[in-house]
Amino acid sequence: MDLDLSLAAPDLTARLVDIESVSGSEGPLADAVEAALRRLPHLAVDRDGHAVVARTSVGRAQRVVLAGHIDTVPVAGNLPSRRERGLLYGCGSCDMKAGVAVQLRLAALVTEPGRDVTYVFYDCEEVEAERNGLLRLSRSRPELLAGDFAVLMEPTGGVVEGGCQGTMRAEIRATGKRAHSARSWLGINAIHEAGRILDVLRDYQAREPDVEGLTYHEGLNAVRISGGVAGNVVPDECVVTVNYRFAPDRSAAEAEAHLREVFAGWEVAVTDQAGGARPGLADPAVASFVTAMGGTPRAKLGWTDVARFDALGVPAVNYGPGDPQLAHREDEHVEIAAILECEARMRAWLAG
Amino acid sequence: MDLDLSLAAPDLTARLVDIESVSGSEGPLADAVEAALRRLPHLAVDRDGHAVVARTSVGRAQRVVLAGHIDTVPVAGNLPSRRERGLLYGCGSCDMKAGVAVQLRLAALVTEPGRDVTYVFYDCEEVEAERNGLLRLSRSRPELLAGDFAVLMEPTGGVVEGGCQGTMRAEIRATGKRAHSARSWLGINAIHEAGRILDVLRDYQAREPDVEGLTYHEGLNAVRISGGVAGNVVPDECVVTVNYRFAPDRSAAEAEAHLREVFAGWEVAVTDQAGGARPGLADPAVASFVTAMGGTPRAKLGWTDVARFDALGVPAVNYGPGDPQLAHREDEHVEIAAILECEARMRAWLAG
Repeated sequence: MDLDLSLAAPDLTARLVDIESVSGSEGPLADAVEAALRRLPHLAVDRDGHAVVARTSVGRAQRVVLAGHIDTVPVAGNLPSRRERGLLYGCGSCDMKAGVAVQLRLAALVTEPGRDVTYVFYDCEEVEAERNGLLRLSRSRPELLAGDFAVLMEPTGGVVEGGCQGTMRAEIRATGKRAHSARSWLGINAIHEAGRILDVLRDYQAREPDVEGLTYHEGLNAVRISGGVAGNVVPDECVVTVNYRFAPDRSAAEAEAHLREVFAGWEVAVTDQAGGARPGLADPAVASFVTAMGGTPRAKLGWTDVARFDALGVPAVNYGPGDPQLAHREDEHVEIAAILECEARMRAWLAG
Repeated sequence: MDLDLSLAAPDLTARLVDIESVSGSEGPLADAVEAALRRLPHLAVDRDGHAVVARTSVGRAQRVVLAGHIDTVPVAGNLPSRRERGLLYGCGSCDMKAGVAVQLRLAALVTEPGRDVTYVFYDCEEVEAERNGLLRLSRSRPELLAGDFAVLMEPTGGVVEGGCQGTMRAEIRATGKRAHSARSWLGINAIHEAGRILDVLRDYQAREPDVEGLTYHEGLNAVRISGGVAGNVVPDECVVTVNYRFAPDRSAAEAEAHLREVFAGWEVAVTDQAGGARPGLADPAVASFVTAMGGTPRAKLGWTDVARFDALGVPAVNYGPGDPQLAHREDEHVEIAAILECEARMRAWLAG
């Protein structure tokens, strides 16, 4: 399979969509991306599993990292790609092969950038974190991800979304004492006790802090509840799994301390956590990027891989073509005009 | 396998325990019971599946039904039977082969009872209601269960337990609206909504009504709770399964109406119900039985097969040797003295 990087970005997007690359099966697409990039003499290309990294070496004072994942969620009868009324449909069109097409176009066209550029194409973003290609690179080849600033080209509707909120899951456990339900007063019903946990959740006032000029919006929600032994038994345990989404002015450790304070008196077991990322808008490189892309930047509320750059000390924002609400849907699609606009703005900024 | 009904009741209990009869595998024990009863010329014996019914026909004005199940819960390393310090150990010793041994002894010894007697030995009491042998008999051969009064010889600690409470299970459903947990304010969390269901349960005041001189004690408990879609989704459904144990002054229909009133505003789906049984202590036959057995009768709080007799229009009580708390345990056992006392009291009452 061959990728012609002289194709217009929407045509290149269609080509990328038609090379199926569900998480774990990115090999053919990674091969095509690698081959196309190796034909470009101004780039140094590295391969790591199904990830490809290409770098300019113009000797500029600054380096920007443009990153995108090449995998998709499972195909849902939405391949091959098709065009209709200015929209390009297909699995991965919006999330995020349009962004990847822009990366590839920039890699091919901007041979003398005003900042050095590292293009990262990685695998397994749509599955569990331990398989994530960017995580793997950050452990095995962190030098490949070095830079002054990073842009994750996920769909953001063409507006810069700064940083991201962190996420933490914890199990809050209510306990009781078993008894036969015909003599329930001999026991203590743990499900009834869990009502007090739900009271806390219902009364919780979520913060909406301003962080570097962006307004984040936290949330604390039960995402699972489970309790019960048998139809005739007063249960002795009920577990509420909560998901705390926290703004990037709190570290994961601070978020955990907050959760333990909110649920003081209960057993709290954190099962999963990922810190957020500050937007870094005070950084001159970030500020110039925001200005160049236009529009008013907003806070990223969901967790994204910008947090991995943050952990590496690289300020990062999210910016790319496509409406994020359309990701993972059967009718996933992207506006052709949005791909072209993103390419034009990025190209102008990189050249500057 | 041969059953010698001239054995003392504790020895006969041990013999019964040693003939394994887990629910569904009662054949050998039913055969032994049938063969032993058929040797007694004063009894007319019927067989239905693994159930055996034997009846005297002395022509008395009244007929009493003595019923017991011959199946047990699964063996738990507690066979064969063994004796230690006045106790007989083994699977089914307490629940309820001691009671069955008393039935068999009475069947053999009381050839000229003061009331005609029907002895019912039935299968599959320890499993789902639809397999219950007494239910099967009540549908296929109801004439075999006819009588003025019935005693279910389940373990009651040697005290008459009158009637039984009914039981009803229902699913109470809280609904909401799905959303990504990073933007939880766009959804309505059904688990949080279920907190109001748990509030109702916590605030519920259970009745303790007097029914024919016995004090029952109701209960309304969550026995299961379940909700959640994924770790990053505000869930749109949460189901609380409640078990309502209701006194026999309420019919199942009245109990259901009560539940629907308590949970007005929610979707309520009754999944399982069984009406209770009034104690019938005003009935002269029941009253004479209570006097003969001694002690102060108390209300049966758990549901038992007396409800099936109640449904057939036959007043019924529970009375038998053994502590019901010991049923279904690995260390299940029965006091040997309790078996002998039960036999003696029943024999005296039947002869009178």
